[in-house]
Amino acid sequence: MKTVYLLNGPNLNMLGKREPGIYGADTLVSIEADCISFGKTIGMTVECRQSNHEGQLIDWIHEAGEKAAGIVFNPGAYTHTSVALHDAIKSVPHVPVVEIHLTNVHAREAFRQKSYISPVAIGVICGFGPLGYQLALRALAERLG
Amino acid sequence: MKTVYLLNGPNLNMLGKREPGIYGADTLVSIEADCISFGKTIGMTVECRQSNHEGQLIDWIHEAGEKAAGIVFNPGAYTHTSVALHDAIKSVPHVPVVEIHLTNVHAREAFRQKSYISPVAIGVICGFGPLGYQLALRALAERLG
Amino acid sequence: MKTVYLLNGPNLNMLGKREPGIYGADTLVSIEADCISFGKTIGMTVECRQSNHEGQLIDWIHEAGEKAAGIVFNPGAYTHTSVALHDAIKSVPHVPVVEIHLTNVHAREAFRQKSYISPVAIGVICGFGPLGYQLALRALAERLG
Amino acid sequence: MKTVYLLNGPNLNMLGKREPGIYGADTLVSIEADCISFGKTIGMTVECRQSNHEGQLIDWIHEAGEKAAGIVFNPGAYTHTSVALHDAIKSVPHVPVVEIHLTNVHAREAFRQKSYISPVAIGVICGFGPLGYQLALRALAERLG
Amino acid sequence: MKTVYLLNGPNLNMLGKREPGIYGADTLVSIEADCISFGKTIGMTVECRQSNHEGQLIDWIHEAGEKAAGIVFNPGAYTHTSVALHDAIKSVPHVPVVEIHLTNVHAREAFRQKSYISPVAIGVICGFGPLGYQLALRALAERLG
Amino acid sequence: MKTVYLLNGPNLNMLGKREPGIYGADTLVSIEADCISFGKTIGMTVECRQSNHEGQLIDWIHEAGEKAAGIVFNPGAYTHTSVALHDAIKSVPHVPVVEIHLTNVHAREAFRQKSYISPVAIGVICGFGPLGYQLALRALAERLG
Amino acid sequence: MKTVYLLNGPNLNMLGKREPGIYGADTLVSIEADCISFGKTIGMTVECRQSNHEGQLIDWIHEAGEKAAGIVFNPGAYTHTSVALHDAIKSVPHVPVVEIHLTNVHAREAFRQKSYISPVAIGVICGFGPLGYQLALRALAERLG
Amino acid sequence: MKTVYLLNGPNLNMLGKREPGIYGADTLVSIEADCISFGKTIGMTVECRQSNHEGQLIDWIHEAGEKAAGIVFNPGAYTHTSVALHDAIKSVPHVPVVEIHLTNVHAREAFRQKSYISPVAIGVICGFGPLGYQLALRALAERLG
Amino acid sequence: MKTVYLLNGPNLNMLGKREPGIYGADTLVSIEADCISFGKTIGMTVECRQSNHEGQLIDWIHEAGEKAAGIVFNPGAYTHTSVALHDAIKSVPHVPVVEIHLTNVHAREAFRQKSYISPVAIGVICGFGPLGYQLALRALAERLG
Amino acid sequence: MKTVYLLNGPNLNMLGKREPGIYGADTLVSIEADCISFGKTIGMTVECRQSNHEGQLIDWIHEAGEKAAGIVFNPGAYTHTSVALHDAIKSVPHVPVVEIHLTNVHAREAFRQKSYISPVAIGVICGFGPLGYQLALRALAERLG
Amino acid sequence: MKTVYLLNGPNLNMLGKREPGIYGADTLVSIEADCISFGKTIGMTVECRQSNHEGQLIDWIHEAGEKAAGIVFNPGAYTHTSVALHDAIKSVPHVPVVEIHLTNVHAREAFRQKSYISPVAIGVICGFGPLGYQLALRALAERLG
Amino acid sequence: MKTVYLLNGPNLNMLGKREPGIYGADTLVSIEADCISFGKTIGMTVECRQSNHEGQLIDWIHEAGEKAAGIVFNPGAYTHTSVALHDAIKSVPHVPVVEIHLTNVHAREAFRQKSYISPVAIGVICGFGPLGYQLALRALAERLG
Repeated sequence: MKTVYLLNGPNLNMLGKREPGIYGADTLVSIEADCISFGKTIGMTVECRQSNHEGQLIDWIHEAGEKAAGIVFNPGAYTHTSVALHDAIKSVPHVPVVEIHLTNVHAREAFRQKSYISPVAIGVICGFGPLGYQLALRALAERLG
Repeated sequence: MKTVYLLNGPNLNMLGKREPGIYGADTLVSIEADCISFGKTIGMTVECRQSNHEGQLIDWIHEAGEKAAGIVFNPGAYTHTSVALHDAIKSVPHVPVVEIHLTNVHAREAFRQKSYISPVAIGVICGFGPLGYQLALRALAERLG
Repeated sequence: MKTVYLLNGPNLNMLGKREPGIYGADTLVSIEADCISFGKTIGMTVECRQSNHEGQLIDWIHEAGEKAAGIVFNPGAYTHTSVALHDAIKSVPHVPVVEIHLTNVHAREAFRQKSYISPVAIGVICGFGPLGYQLALRALAERLG
Repeated sequence: MKTVYLLNGPNLNMLGKREPGIYGADTLVSIEADCISFGKTIGMTVECRQSNHEGQLIDWIHEAGEKAAGIVFNPGAYTHTSVALHDAIKSVPHVPVVEIHLTNVHAREAFRQKSYISPVAIGVICGFGPLGYQLALRALAERLG
Repeated sequence: MKTVYLLNGPNLNMLGKREPGIYGADTLVSIEADCISFGKTIGMTVECRQSNHEGQLIDWIHEAGEKAAGIVFNPGAYTHTSVALHDAIKSVPHVPVVEIHLTNVHAREAFRQKSYISPVAIGVICGFGPLGYQLALRALAERLG
Repeated sequence: MKTVYLLNGPNLNMLGKREPGIYGADTLVSIEADCISFGKTIGMTVECRQSNHEGQLIDWIHEAGEKAAGIVFNPGAYTHTSVALHDAIKSVPHVPVVEIHLTNVHAREAFRQKSYISPVAIGVICGFGPLGYQLALRALAERLG
Repeated sequence: MKTVYLLNGPNLNMLGKREPGIYGADTLVSIEADCISFGKTIGMTVECRQSNHEGQLIDWIHEAGEKAAGIVFNPGAYTHTSVALHDAIKSVPHVPVVEIHLTNVHAREAFRQKSYISPVAIGVICGFGPLGYQLALRALAERLG
Repeated sequence: MKTVYLLNGPNLNMLGKREPGIYGADTLVSIEADCISFGKTIGMTVECRQSNHEGQLIDWIHEAGEKAAGIVFNPGAYTHTSVALHDAIKSVPHVPVVEIHLTNVHAREAFRQKSYISPVAIGVICGFGPLGYQLALRALAERLG
Repeated sequence: MKTVYLLNGPNLNMLGKREPGIYGADTLVSIEADCISFGKTIGMTVECRQSNHEGQLIDWIHEAGEKAAGIVFNPGAYTHTSVALHDAIKSVPHVPVVEIHLTNVHAREAFRQKSYISPVAIGVICGFGPLGYQLALRALAERLG
Repeated sequence: MKTVYLLNGPNLNMLGKREPGIYGADTLVSIEADCISFGKTIGMTVECRQSNHEGQLIDWIHEAGEKAAGIVFNPGAYTHTSVALHDAIKSVPHVPVVEIHLTNVHAREAFRQKSYISPVAIGVICGFGPLGYQLALRALAERLG
Repeated sequence: MKTVYLLNGPNLNMLGKREPGIYGADTLVSIEADCISFGKTIGMTVECRQSNHEGQLIDWIHEAGEKAAGIVFNPGAYTHTSVALHDAIKSVPHVPVVEIHLTNVHAREAFRQKSYISPVAIGVICGFGPLGYQLALRALAERLG
Repeated sequence: MKTVYLLNGPNLNMLGKREPGIYGADTLVSIEADCISFGKTIGMTVECRQSNHEGQLIDWIHEAGEKAAGIVFNPGAYTHTSVALHDAIKSVPHVPVVEIHLTNVHAREAFRQKSYISPVAIGVICGFGPLGYQLALRALAERLG
């Protein structure tokens, strides 16, 4: 079983509590549970973390450099502003990162069109809601062979 | 009595200690005390917090979603760079936010002209020093009826 | 009693007549009456003027240089285009100007994000509807001591 | 008979007097007379006004809100600079406005490519000389049913 | 009888089939039929063509250089991206082109504000739905004398 | 069995023939065969098409409006330049489109950062090579219920 | 004696009243008197006008087209925003215009670097205070022969 | 004898027919004939093609990947807009491409300053009329040794 | 002995662990040890801190305002995005800051060309690897006299 | 008699030789002679220099710092590109510089709208041909008292 | 025999000495010798000059106005920054200039995409190494008849 | 003893003569003398040169390619405008260059933020006055081993 980190960034702890019409009724807890279950079916131990702190996310990426085979990462709003997360990912080049967003960011505000994460991710998935996490795990699985 | 959060962002803990010619001699502690007193006169319990950590401010906004009727928010320098705080405010749409700045940011550097907070605030007040906090509380009071 | 000019720019004469769902049911006449009443309570004679003509507004600002202690100014659409009003305010440096907008201009079109007035105002208030005028008078009162 | 305002902005009073090779030999007076005649044939009373003053044009648009069923508007150079006229048109949403230019502005200087009027007009006609006014009246007639 | 080409670009074959609330219930076939009828009343044979292929539209413009007195052209989305159509029109300078759009493109997305066709057209009409084609034919008729 | 169109744009017919170090050794024919097989396992008939002609791709999207439940679309280089394909997708709003790219376009040239397709797609997948097509089909399957 | 119009735009009526340290102690009245005197020495009748109204300045330029041989024009802040004044000058091509500014606008704010007047003036003089008007009259005299 | 493709893009079929004062009296047919003759003198079989269709040009570049040693390519207006042609050339890296333009595009409109073809060509020749094709063939000959 | 803070920002804790070919084999621990030793030779007590948290770095700068004579600061990726750190430095104007980077940021990505720290530092050193810290300490020593 | 340097930059040695229809028939030699004569009438010794070398012009400005009371400077094309000349002028702050251009640069190409010299000159004169030099000398004379 | 100047700008004296893998093993001396030989075969005396000084190159262009029938010019890095060389070429309009670069500048850094020389050259050749000079001479020969 | 060139660009010959409050009382001569002395202590012969001529500086860089082990370079204002100096440094890749500025250019005008030299230097030092030269020599010494 390979260990994969599933990292969620700022405001994603609010999933399911607010605006279910937009984000769906699933809480982050249930999404994480689904990912853990799904991970088992494809030979992955999925370690789930969420933080609103940019520094915390950087710490976890460094930690993943020691403990994980890959990362599925929804950086939330830090996607668009964090050079530090960009550099954190580059500091663990042996750990592939899949970037994922619940919504189709390309159909939203202009400031969401810019991602500092995408250039250092192996690929990006957006717009498919919670299913996106499973697609990301699957893509990571293939990459990890 | 309605509870209102008064949140101050980075560097505002330095108020009164430095450059009193510019920022006035009032410390944040005295400004907060004035706001608490003023709040009582208009039926508001004012809960005061300050942090230099973006993630902490996000956490408090989420918390306000549970515990407060509104927020008076001086985001300091995060005003100009934080999409994450923008999203945090949008995640608690039932909690109106008034943005406030001590100085007139429009008369300062170009990079201070951009606010990620203003589009999700109900209104903005800037340039009036500590008085601005009381104007903000008053505006919030009217909005909350 | 100090005299303060309350100047309203283009299209503000239409208040209350159109789109009450957005701008409220108050006409400019009633807002001005409220400001005059409120002014009396804080020791101010509020002189109200409105014009759709940029040149007229410049003339009034010059006149205020002779007759008024301060100005509360809603420049309407000239906010975004008028260097001449910017210069007019700079030509009466002893007369503090508070800029005020009924709506939160920062949540509207991109061309409303630019203000030629803000850099020469002492402060700005926007987004609080008619209440904003009273907050502006209050801020002006404090400045005038 | 429906009343329609035909408003012409700055410098259009000079038509026919100067550069007939470019703008044609028709004066504004003769163009207005043609429009009045043409209007009668399609059941419209065409009220003609011209001013070089932005404020005056705003006043007339407000007046049209009371007295006219629609407006044919050649804003001249204010097309490219006037947010105030943009707002004036939005303040009378029940009065459709057709924007018209004698010349093809798109084949001229870059600063003429921007129109603050077009987004709030129902449509735009340019490049056909005096005939454009009649096409505009016709388009307005169809819209007004 | 003069021959005029009525060219419609990409996606205009879908007219009437989709979103009748926006584009009206008229199909392109019926609009073309109306134009042919209207053309007869002003001495014009209207030849109607539609293609989703940029190259095909170029071919037809060249062909019009041999066979037509003028062109009424709705370039659809190629308006905003095609230098090749710009050059095609310039390659037949003796054939005047009237650009026409069903919707008011100026009230839509930013990328629709740019037209490569307008600078080489004699004039532009937009925002009046199917009526626009008849106005365009009328404008072309006047130009052709 | 639902019918889904799998459309590939310009230069994708060259897959497998050139630069296998970069794009892999799979030809488009084998990728399409894999997709057809995979489609069967999730209840989809996958209809595969490829063209280097923008107009042809528009025609097929219109056709899909009649015959298909959804589209998986790799627009190749037209991603970055084609407003016409953007409009084509909007003309068949009942047909969801998943955008897919073999490479991580965000890690490539600046001109590949702009997509006219993404804002009208339901979601986007990029960077995972041929696997991306299967992830796209899976995402489409979920959307189609 | 040739008649020349000396037109001054917005806020120039405030000269001498405010900030004499910057703009000098001369009032506009005394500057105009000096220009009239100087004009006589070089065979010119100098007609002096000032207005804060853009429309009034346009009217006077049109009038100059009938009554004056040339114009010395300090457009004040309208320099940077008025396409209408640009067009007014172009509407009287037989009347040469010299643009003049008291201060060196190039050493001031960025928004003062743009002039809509300069491209249609015969030349520009700035930075020399009241002397600039006499240099402008002298330049105009040479041009008028 | 090496085979070289001479590809001409949109509107170049109009050469010689229109505006001989600018483009010269030579038709594309005669230019192609000259190139074929010249090619023979330097050991090249020149295969000539012209199309107004972007997709057709892509097809031919792919075909050249199988059948030609090099390409002389005048992409016409697609030079400035076609990422697809850029990619097509990159898909046949063993086939050197020389870009050629009849006119000096650098002395023309701003939108002609951008070339998507140049970065993937081995070199560029422009401004020398029909002679440019022969210079291009000569340059290609040297490259092919 | 003067106390100087040596602050390192995000990802610098990873030094020496990764990509020694680029960043050298030195760990942050050994670099800090060298700085402490070197500091002693020039009369400085060097207090070393590292954090991936922007807020923590702000806290330490405030603390330095109380306890340190100067700061040597490698802000890592926050260099390019943090207005809050810019303000933090301005809040302790009596504490000079030397900015330092291990690599030559000017030879890297465009987004690394912008520094919010440089305008409030006394000087900047970049590109010399670990030696840069010693040069920075030396420069600070001279400034502190 | 005060000494003033009259410096002319690149290509001004060609005056009178080429395109007399545009630049007039006067050579630089005759313009310089006129300036020397005119200088005498207002108490100035005019020292004339011309160079096509940016470095030479810098040298002369430094020299003027020792030997001259002021400079009349036509920097030619270096106006738009030379930060070094900007700095040279700032290095001799006791020597006022008047910038002068023969043509109205504001009516020419966009790249001529930028001047690195104007912000450090006391004023600018352009568009009046050789007369401009005399106006510049006169302005300098007034400044020098 | 017509005289043609072959001018080479900054750093081209280093050809052949450095990086022969990129620029080839030919020195400038040998390239110039080849050009002189080739010139003789087409009736041209080729006068070769090289300088790293912008002013020297301007001087030579002026000299060519007296002594040469045309210029082949490789402006090196001044291509991208020199308005003065642009003007120098325009000052000798009877002398056609062919711009030439050894490398394909369009495939290099962004700052090399801008040429101040191209708009005033008759044509441009780049990317073909030393052969480019001969192609340029040939093109010049045809232009000179 | 290794030879190092210390090159100073435009206006640096003025050091010490002007504005000692800003640039210090040291002349370039004394700074150079200090560098020569300091160089001896670290085994370097420091050869000092200064020129206001861009071409001269290029020549010296080429010369350094033959005679020097490294260069300490203060390019003055050419930093911001000279692609030719950028290329000159790239033409001597075996000679490392340290860029140095006396002042903190990042705290000055926007046009000083761009350096064409930094991307080809090994590192940059700015803001430390004359001390910067010694830091630069020390950094160079380490690089040269």
